[in-house]
Amino acid sequence: MSHGVALIGTGFMGKCHALAWRGVAPVFGGVHPRLEILCDVTQAQADEFAARFGFARGMADWEAAISDPAVDVVSITTPNGLHRPMAEAALRAGKHVWLEKPMALTLADAQAMAALAAAHPRQVTLLGYNYLRAPAFQAALALVQDGRIGTPLAFRGVYDEDYCADPALPWSWRMTHEGGGLGALGDLGCHLVSVMVALMGEVTEVTAMTQIAVPQRPAPDGPRTVENEDSALALIRFASGAQGSFATSRVARGRKCRLQWEVHGSDGTIVFDQENMNELWIHRAGEAGFTRHLTGPDQPDFAAFCPAPGHNFGFNEQKVIEARDLIRAIDGGVPCGPDFAEGVQIERIIHAMARSQGRPVRMEDMKHDAA
Amino acid sequence: MSHGVALIGTGFMGKCHALAWRGVAPVFGGVHPRLEILCDVTQAQADEFAARFGFARGMADWEAAISDPAVDVVSITTPNGLHRPMAEAALRAGKHVWLEKPMALTLADAQAMAALAAAHPRQVTLLGYNYLRAPAFQAALALVQDGRIGTPLAFRGVYDEDYCADPALPWSWRMTHEGGGLGALGDLGCHLVSVMVALMGEVTEVTAMTQIAVPQRPAPDGPRTVENEDSALALIRFASGAQGSFATSRVARGRKCRLQWEVHGSDGTIVFDQENMNELWIHRAGEAGFTRHLTGPDQPDFAAFCPAPGHNFGFNEQKVIEARDLIRAIDGGVPCGPDFAEGVQIERIIHAMARSQGRPVRMEDMKHDAA
Amino acid sequence: MSHGVALIGTGFMGKCHALAWRGVAPVFGGVHPRLEILCDVTQAQADEFAARFGFARGMADWEAAISDPAVDVVSITTPNGLHRPMAEAALRAGKHVWLEKPMALTLADAQAMAALAAAHPRQVTLLGYNYLRAPAFQAALALVQDGRIGTPLAFRGVYDEDYCADPALPWSWRMTHEGGGLGALGDLGCHLVSVMVALMGEVTEVTAMTQIAVPQRPAPDGPRTVENEDSALALIRFASGAQGSFATSRVARGRKCRLQWEVHGSDGTIVFDQENMNELWIHRAGEAGFTRHLTGPDQPDFAAFCPAPGHNFGFNEQKVIEARDLIRAIDGGVPCGPDFAEGVQIERIIHAMARSQGRPVRMEDMKHDAA
Amino acid sequence: MSHGVALIGTGFMGKCHALAWRGVAPVFGGVHPRLEILCDVTQAQADEFAARFGFARGMADWEAAISDPAVDVVSITTPNGLHRPMAEAALRAGKHVWLEKPMALTLADAQAMAALAAAHPRQVTLLGYNYLRAPAFQAALALVQDGRIGTPLAFRGVYDEDYCADPALPWSWRMTHEGGGLGALGDLGCHLVSVMVALMGEVTEVTAMTQIAVPQRPAPDGPRTVENEDSALALIRFASGAQGSFATSRVARGRKCRLQWEVHGSDGTIVFDQENMNELWIHRAGEAGFTRHLTGPDQPDFAAFCPAPGHNFGFNEQKVIEARDLIRAIDGGVPCGPDFAEGVQIERIIHAMARSQGRPVRMEDMKHDAA
Repeated sequence: MSHGVALIGTGFMGKCHALAWRGVAPVFGGVHPRLEILCDVTQAQADEFAARFGFARGMADWEAAISDPAVDVVSITTPNGLHRPMAEAALRAGKHVWLEKPMALTLADAQAMAALAAAHPRQVTLLGYNYLRAPAFQAALALVQDGRIGTPLAFRGVYDEDYCADPALPWSWRMTHEGGGLGALGDLGCHLVSVMVALMGEVTEVTAMTQIAVPQRPAPDGPRTVENEDSALALIRFASGAQGSFATSRVARGRKCRLQWEVHGSDGTIVFDQENMNELWIHRAGEAGFTRHLTGPDQPDFAAFCPAPGHNFGFNEQKVIEARDLIRAIDGGVPCGPDFAEGVQIERIIHAMARSQGRPVRMEDMKHDAA
Repeated sequence: MSHGVALIGTGFMGKCHALAWRGVAPVFGGVHPRLEILCDVTQAQADEFAARFGFARGMADWEAAISDPAVDVVSITTPNGLHRPMAEAALRAGKHVWLEKPMALTLADAQAMAALAAAHPRQVTLLGYNYLRAPAFQAALALVQDGRIGTPLAFRGVYDEDYCADPALPWSWRMTHEGGGLGALGDLGCHLVSVMVALMGEVTEVTAMTQIAVPQRPAPDGPRTVENEDSALALIRFASGAQGSFATSRVARGRKCRLQWEVHGSDGTIVFDQENMNELWIHRAGEAGFTRHLTGPDQPDFAAFCPAPGHNFGFNEQKVIEARDLIRAIDGGVPCGPDFAEGVQIERIIHAMARSQGRPVRMEDMKHDAA
Repeated sequence: MSHGVALIGTGFMGKCHALAWRGVAPVFGGVHPRLEILCDVTQAQADEFAARFGFARGMADWEAAISDPAVDVVSITTPNGLHRPMAEAALRAGKHVWLEKPMALTLADAQAMAALAAAHPRQVTLLGYNYLRAPAFQAALALVQDGRIGTPLAFRGVYDEDYCADPALPWSWRMTHEGGGLGALGDLGCHLVSVMVALMGEVTEVTAMTQIAVPQRPAPDGPRTVENEDSALALIRFASGAQGSFATSRVARGRKCRLQWEVHGSDGTIVFDQENMNELWIHRAGEAGFTRHLTGPDQPDFAAFCPAPGHNFGFNEQKVIEARDLIRAIDGGVPCGPDFAEGVQIERIIHAMARSQGRPVRMEDMKHDAA
Repeated sequence: MSHGVALIGTGFMGKCHALAWRGVAPVFGGVHPRLEILCDVTQAQADEFAARFGFARGMADWEAAISDPAVDVVSITTPNGLHRPMAEAALRAGKHVWLEKPMALTLADAQAMAALAAAHPRQVTLLGYNYLRAPAFQAALALVQDGRIGTPLAFRGVYDEDYCADPALPWSWRMTHEGGGLGALGDLGCHLVSVMVALMGEVTEVTAMTQIAVPQRPAPDGPRTVENEDSALALIRFASGAQGSFATSRVARGRKCRLQWEVHGSDGTIVFDQENMNELWIHRAGEAGFTRHLTGPDQPDFAAFCPAPGHNFGFNEQKVIEARDLIRAIDGGVPCGPDFAEGVQIERIIHAMARSQGRPVRMEDMKHDAA
């Protein structure tokens, strides 16, 4: 089955989606996206990127793009404030939605979006939690789910970068609640939550502290106040009885994409760091130490990219797998996620962290609270 | 000035102290310990170890050993339950005390010991927090204190081992409150606290969760209950305004001595892992990434052991530095620590963690509470 | 300027070229490949892959494909024995040629191809030495060329894999001189030579030893003899006066893509390992140790793929840069390499190694010898 | 049985021997060295170090020290030029000899020493190849010898440091043939040979190139010529049929003690780097990758130092094991090595490398040549 695609946005994630839509058929075969509409802010830009990205047409009017009859799926890669109106328009137009994270700026927005998605059960929604697609991550997840490290006892997770570490970095709207949501929790923390929930299951309680390391930043008219979080630390209780620690920072000097986690099981331990995303470290009871398992065709989905182990899988290629999962979900009903319903759970967790201020917050209460 | 030494205990730490007392003069020069009495449970054993460890005499009666006039300093390396009576006897006999951690089984005991030490201000007390002596740690500490990574913003600390990971490991008195104190928090956590406080300064609040991963363990008469903690996770507030995460486990499969920590400063980051204790990882603003600084004569105290960089410093050698610090404190009044007063602060922190059960505990309240 | 592309082959490297041709315009912009013909062994397969890879037409007749007027550039990814006839046909048809390595099964073939290329100076030839394109490699090369590590004194290079380590791996034509050329030297060693020559300049002499670790392998009709090299070791003299060591193996258990090298300069050292191709390790005089430089937008070409550092670059993406380089060479005369002339030098070096048998072989003599 | 010890020298290796003699009884028990005489250049220095290192007497006359009836074993840690006269005096005086490497400045000297040792078969000789004693090395050796990685096929060895990398380092007698012997080959290369021969067995042929990276160095009276090697590269043939590569440098910027080697076996690979001497990396056929085996009580001799795994073993502690091995050899006839006979083989190999100049040198010829 062929699927008409509209892609909205041509920035970091826009290009990443474009490469995914271009690569998914060559890599996997058996999928048939038609790259119909590329949507950017002006017609000229849209036309230019349509030509460059291999889309049939450029359009500046995203509402028209979404409602275009040639379009079956909409890739939304615009600034966070546009996620809700675009995703809702797409759902209402009967389209499948592939939306970058975070879902929205507020929890209420995210919940409204999930409610609308629930009302359109035949349309697939998928959020861009791409780190779930790395072959090493998928391999780790399979080990956990198959009980290869016994019962998961503890999770230790970190997602640190340093893109805001320099205090001379100018103030921007990304540093406000309204424009940038929860800061590091929204940019980075939600990715770590997606990974944590996939590995460990349902979260029942969080206790968190947050920090604004650089309270004011230079702006043309003098220093302005940073509103959202530079970093957050949390304790986690899981429904399974396991416990976890959680940390994220956008001011961690020298860290570039340190999405690093460990799962401690009763019979083994798995360790991963996205900065070396082709290495999975596994220890199982009785072994002499941790074994470095390089990404190769023995890990999920890698063989479609390359038949040779140790030939590195790249960040962008995660998105190709994501595109394939989306198409499979549309075609065959193979569930893929996180969809909007699961996305709301992720949002609840980071919002609970933002609210905690050192006190335990039960996830059950977040649900009622925001209902 | 020469100092007569009595060493009580010949186990893991007993041998470690013996090697330190044997090595300190050759390594550093200018120090003059006289190895007078080796104390073990029977006279035969004491004599045997006295000969082997190079002590002049063996004794089975520790009280006599402590009060022996030839003795100026007492090394106490016995099981935790004997720490208080031995340390107090030594203080009362006018001796300097070098005591292995944890100070005591209960916070009340530790506080009583500190009170007694305060009443003997001319006698030096030193607790065996040996990880503070590693050249790489000392180098890191100097970087932090000299402001080389700017203002410390966050601490991330872990101390994981797996010595209790196997559920088939038999029950022992170490797994009871009375015999083993706080479990992983007492065995491992207190070391991590010693490091954290040295790097980050005073702790004002902790919030912790603990876990007993293996609730019952085999005993000759059937399964018995494990009372103390297999693992703990905590959030930390520092007086400086910095925040921290803290984790320790004795059931972390594959971890052997993972005392791993990071200090995030406004201008740089330092990372260390005791399993590779000769590597210090440093990033400072403007550099391309983390630099691996191998232990060498440019780090404190290493040159006395070896003039060549990259020639590994070992675990036992930490204790030689500790012995030198103790002697210097006795001779010249150069303060060294943690002494009993600082040790109580460490104990308060781990006891606060043990009590927290997910609620914030102010360290101020621990002080009042236990006073 | 737009360029019509024919791609011959759909295997490991065929798919890799397809992804490169698909990705090069979205990634870099300003390039305009037209994917005209996909060539495979049967018309059905060719049609299927043309649809999947996004080529306009499928063809089974490679000679027709090459001579097709819509085609400007030919990507050749077929088995090594077909490299010469296809490349020569393409050159004779006036087409630019992008050829996978090794150039050919024999040195004579390679030299003939280079001679033909020399006779078609307006057509670009490019060999698929993709490891030269990794951003970390390009960054390293720039450091060397800019004198940032002073005068290069020594090269240490290894390329190890284990795809033939299992003695139960059946015999195949790849293990014969006729079908598989020089074995590990041809499969892996030539890549390492490409890297070595780029970093260190002209080679004047090699001394090598080779080994067949598994002399016979199972075949349906009984054990058959392996003719070509499982591994090789060599000493290298460079025209600059620098010296080098060189090692390659296809039977190195546990190695997957260990193309690992060091350049020792008078003022610094650079270390790289393709298994962690996003890490470059740099030490410069006066620094405390080696710094880990993660691939990011500060390394050549990465920003076009991703604006964020530490977000891993992948093996396949090297080929996208290669495609861009080829197009730039065609369009603007920006030289790119290794072309066929440089490729012959690489071939001479590995053939010299294969012949050496422990005696020094002067590259000057290889030139005369094979002329 | 008790053994009287004389130690000659108090520098880097002198202190290292002193610590070994002090530590060997506490660590291992069952050994009884008596520290009789400490020998240094003046009586005052000798007395001072005797007191500091715990020896009974200081002496300035090494010949008297060696012939003293209280002395059974002589530790020789003086500059290389004194090795032969001291070792020969000790042998003639009926003493056991523990000699630092390299044996002597010339091969002829080494051979004369070995001949004399052969004439005193009841006296033990031991050369200070301490890297053979690291628990991780011993564990690796056992794996190789027990066939756990199958048949050894190849050795890759490097020993790099950077102590002469700075061209501003002043000229010294260590840079002459007469005073410093073979340079990097003598300082570092012989250690790597000791490791290589232990792991791989007899060497039959070497082919080497050497390099003087800094031909002249500053001296008070103007630049002076460096005579011996800054680096060397070699190819090795082993009697077993295995092949090896070998590299050593004293001008490798950033390398501090990189004695790094790999053994490639038919069924597995072992990798070690002395800069992280507590990590052994092992891959065996069928495993997912390399496993990091931290030094612990499951490796030879470590338990005597520390019962806990992951608690780092140090460089100096290697020498404690060496002392124990020497005593065991004296007491019980347990052979230990390399003795002078084996030491000559090591010397032959590095001298063959120094002579090779790119041509194969058969070890058989070295034997005849120097006989």
